[in-house]
Amino acid sequence: QDAKAGRAKASAQCAVCHGPNGIAQMPTAANLAGQQELYLIKALEDFRSGKRENEMMTVIAKGLSDSDVANLAAWYASIQVTAQTPP
Amino acid sequence: QDAKAGRAKASAQCAVCHGPNGIAQMPTAANLAGQQELYLIKALEDFRSGKRENEMMTVIAKGLSDSDVANLAAWYASIQVTAQTPP
Repeated sequence: QDAKAGRAKASAQCAVCHGPNGIAQMPTAANLAGQQELYLIKALEDFRSGKRENEMMTVIAKGLSDSDVANLAAWYASIQVTAQTPP
Repeated sequence: QDAKAGRAKASAQCAVCHGPNGIAQMPTAANLAGQQELYLIKALEDFRSGKRENEMMTVIAKGLSDSDVANLAAWYASIQVTAQTPP
Protein backbone atom coordinates (compact mmCIF):
# COMPACT_ATOMS: atom_id res chain seq x y z
CA GLN A 1 0.00 0.00 0.00
CA ASP A 2 1.08 3.54 -0.72
CA ALA A 3 -0.08 6.10 1.82
CA LYS A 4 1.13 9.01 -0.33
CA ALA A 5 -0.98 7.86 -3.27
CA GLY A 6 -3.85 7.42 -0.82
CA ARG A 7 -3.36 10.97 0.40
CA ALA A 8 -3.67 12.33 -3.13
CA LYS A 9 -6.74 10.23 -3.86
CA ALA A 10 -8.32 11.25 -0.56
CA SER A 11 -7.72 14.89 -1.29
CA ALA A 12 -9.57 14.52 -4.59
CA GLN A 13 -12.45 12.27 -3.60
CA CYS A 14 -12.93 12.05 0.16
CA ALA A 15 -11.96 15.34 1.75
CA VAL A 16 -15.12 17.28 0.93
CA CYS A 17 -17.12 15.15 3.37
CA HIS A 18 -14.45 13.51 5.53
CA GLY A 19 -12.24 16.58 5.92
CA PRO A 20 -8.72 17.33 4.72
CA ASN A 21 -7.27 15.59 7.79
CA GLY A 22 -9.95 12.91 8.15
CA ILE A 23 -12.15 14.78 10.62
CA ALA A 24 -15.65 14.82 9.12
CA GLN A 25 -17.17 18.00 7.75
CA MET A 26 -20.72 16.67 7.52
CA PRO A 27 -22.95 15.41 10.34
CA THR A 28 -23.54 12.03 8.71
CA ALA A 29 -19.94 11.35 7.62
CA ALA A 30 -17.45 9.40 9.71
CA ASN A 31 -14.14 10.62 11.04
CA LEU A 32 -11.53 8.54 9.26
CA ALA A 33 -8.39 9.95 10.86
CA GLY A 34 -6.44 7.27 12.65
CA GLN A 35 -8.90 4.48 11.98
CA GLN A 36 -7.37 1.04 11.91
CA GLU A 37 -6.26 -0.03 8.47
CA LEU A 38 -8.22 -3.31 8.51
CA TYR A 39 -11.37 -1.49 9.55
CA LEU A 40 -11.02 0.99 6.68
CA ILE A 41 -10.38 -1.72 4.09
CA LYS A 42 -13.45 -3.63 5.24
CA ALA A 43 -15.62 -0.51 5.17
CA LEU A 44 -14.59 0.36 1.61
CA GLU A 45 -14.92 -3.22 0.41
CA ASP A 46 -18.36 -3.52 1.99
CA PHE A 47 -19.54 -0.30 0.35
CA ARG A 48 -18.10 -1.42 -2.96
CA SER A 49 -19.75 -4.84 -2.84
CA GLY A 50 -23.08 -3.46 -1.65
CA LYS A 51 -22.90 -5.31 1.68
CA ARG A 52 -22.97 -1.92 3.35
CA GLU A 53 -25.07 0.86 1.87
CA ASN A 54 -24.87 4.61 1.93
CA GLU A 55 -26.18 7.00 -0.68
CA MET A 56 -22.82 8.68 -1.13
CA MET A 57 -20.34 5.93 -0.34
CA THR A 58 -22.00 3.31 -2.52
CA VAL A 59 -21.31 5.54 -5.52
CA ILE A 60 -17.81 6.57 -4.51
CA ALA A 61 -16.62 3.08 -3.58
CA LYS A 62 -17.67 1.56 -6.89
CA GLY A 63 -15.05 3.72 -8.58
CA LEU A 64 -12.18 2.50 -6.39
CA SER A 65 -9.67 -0.18 -7.44
CA ASP A 66 -8.18 -2.64 -4.96
CA SER A 67 -5.04 -0.55 -4.80
CA ASP A 68 -7.08 2.62 -4.21
CA VAL A 69 -8.71 0.88 -1.25
CA ALA A 70 -5.35 -0.24 0.16
CA ASN A 71 -3.79 3.18 -0.38
CA LEU A 72 -6.69 5.11 1.15
CA ALA A 73 -6.71 2.82 4.18
CA ALA A 74 -2.96 3.26 4.61
CA TRP A 75 -3.32 7.04 4.37
CA TYR A 76 -6.12 7.47 6.88
CA ALA A 77 -4.54 4.97 9.28
CA SER A 78 -1.31 7.00 9.20
CA ILE A 79 -2.98 10.10 10.67
CA GLN A 80 -2.31 10.33 14.40
CA VAL A 81 -5.32 11.06 16.58
CA THR A 82 -5.52 11.95 20.21
CA ALA A 83 -8.73 11.82 22.23
CA GLN A 84 -9.59 13.96 25.22
CA THR A 85 -12.56 12.81 27.27
CA PRO A 86 -14.69 15.37 29.12
CA PRO A 87 -13.99 15.64 32.87
CA GLN B 1 -29.71 12.35 25.47
CA ASP B 2 -27.53 11.86 28.49
CA ALA B 3 -23.82 11.68 27.77
CA LYS B 4 -23.03 10.65 31.35
CA ALA B 5 -25.33 7.65 31.14
CA GLY B 6 -23.75 6.89 27.78
CA ARG B 7 -20.31 7.02 29.35
CA ALA B 8 -21.31 4.43 31.96
CA LYS B 9 -22.90 2.18 29.35
CA ALA B 10 -19.87 2.52 27.09
CA SER B 11 -17.55 1.60 29.91
CA ALA B 12 -19.51 -1.59 30.49
CA GLN B 13 -20.22 -2.69 26.94
CA CYS B 14 -18.07 -0.91 24.37
CA ALA B 15 -14.68 -0.15 25.88
CA VAL B 16 -13.14 -3.60 25.54
CA CYS B 17 -13.03 -3.23 21.76
CA HIS B 18 -13.46 0.51 21.20
CA GLY B 19 -11.17 1.65 24.01
CA PRO B 20 -11.88 3.54 27.23
CA ASN B 21 -11.63 6.85 25.37
CA GLY B 22 -13.09 5.68 22.05
CA ILE B 23 -9.80 4.82 20.37
CA ALA B 24 -10.10 1.24 19.15
CA GLN B 25 -8.17 -1.56 20.82
CA MET B 26 -8.78 -4.12 18.08
CA PRO B 27 -7.72 -3.96 14.43
CA THR B 28 -11.25 -4.45 13.11
CA ALA B 29 -13.01 -2.06 15.50
CA ALA B 30 -13.70 1.58 14.71
CA ASN B 31 -12.49 4.60 16.61
CA LEU B 32 -15.61 6.21 18.02
CA ALA B 33 -14.04 9.19 19.78
CA GLY B 34 -15.39 12.44 18.41
CA GLN B 35 -17.59 10.87 15.76
CA GLN B 36 -20.57 12.94 14.79
CA GLU B 37 -23.66 12.18 16.83
CA LEU B 38 -25.88 11.52 13.80
CA TYR B 39 -23.32 9.16 12.33
CA LEU B 40 -23.15 7.17 15.57
CA ILE B 41 -26.92 6.95 15.92
CA LYS B 42 -27.24 5.67 12.35
CA ALA B 43 -24.48 3.10 12.85
CA LEU B 44 -26.10 1.68 15.99
CA GLU B 45 -29.58 1.70 14.48
CA ASP B 46 -28.31 -0.03 11.35
CA PHE B 47 -26.56 -2.73 13.39
CA ARG B 48 -29.66 -3.15 15.52
CA SER B 49 -32.01 -3.48 12.54
CA GLY B 50 -29.67 -5.80 10.64
CA LYS B 51 -29.18 -3.29 7.80
CA ARG B 52 -25.49 -3.31 8.70
CA GLU B 53 -23.86 -6.52 9.86
CA ASN B 54 -20.91 -7.33 12.04
CA GLU B 55 -20.39 -10.45 14.11
CA MET B 56 -19.88 -8.52 17.32
CA MET B 57 -21.97 -5.39 16.80
CA THR B 58 -25.06 -7.23 15.59
CA VAL B 59 -25.22 -8.96 18.97
CA ILE B 60 -24.38 -5.90 21.07
CA ALA B 61 -26.74 -3.53 19.29
CA LYS B 62 -29.77 -5.79 19.70
CA GLY B 63 -29.49 -5.25 23.45
CA LEU B 64 -29.60 -1.46 23.22
CA SER B 65 -32.72 0.63 23.82
CA ASP B 66 -33.43 3.84 21.91
CA SER B 67 -32.18 5.82 24.87
CA ASP B 68 -29.02 3.72 25.09
CA VAL B 69 -28.37 4.57 21.43
CA ALA B 70 -28.94 8.28 22.02
CA ASN B 71 -26.82 8.30 25.17
CA LEU B 72 -23.92 6.37 23.64
CA ALA B 73 -23.91 8.67 20.62
CA ALA B 74 -23.91 11.73 22.87
CA TRP B 75 -21.04 10.32 24.90
CA TYR B 76 -18.74 9.41 22.03
CA ALA B 77 -19.52 12.67 20.20
CA SER B 78 -18.49 14.61 23.31
CA ILE B 79 -14.92 13.30 23.20
CA GLN B 80 -12.61 15.85 21.59
CA VAL B 81 -10.25 14.53 18.96
CA THR B 82 -7.34 16.15 17.25
CA ALA B 83 -5.72 14.81 14.10
CA GLN B 84 -2.12 15.22 13.07
CA THR B 85 -1.32 14.36 9.47
CA PRO B 86 2.14 13.04 8.56
CA PRO B 87 4.49 15.60 6.98
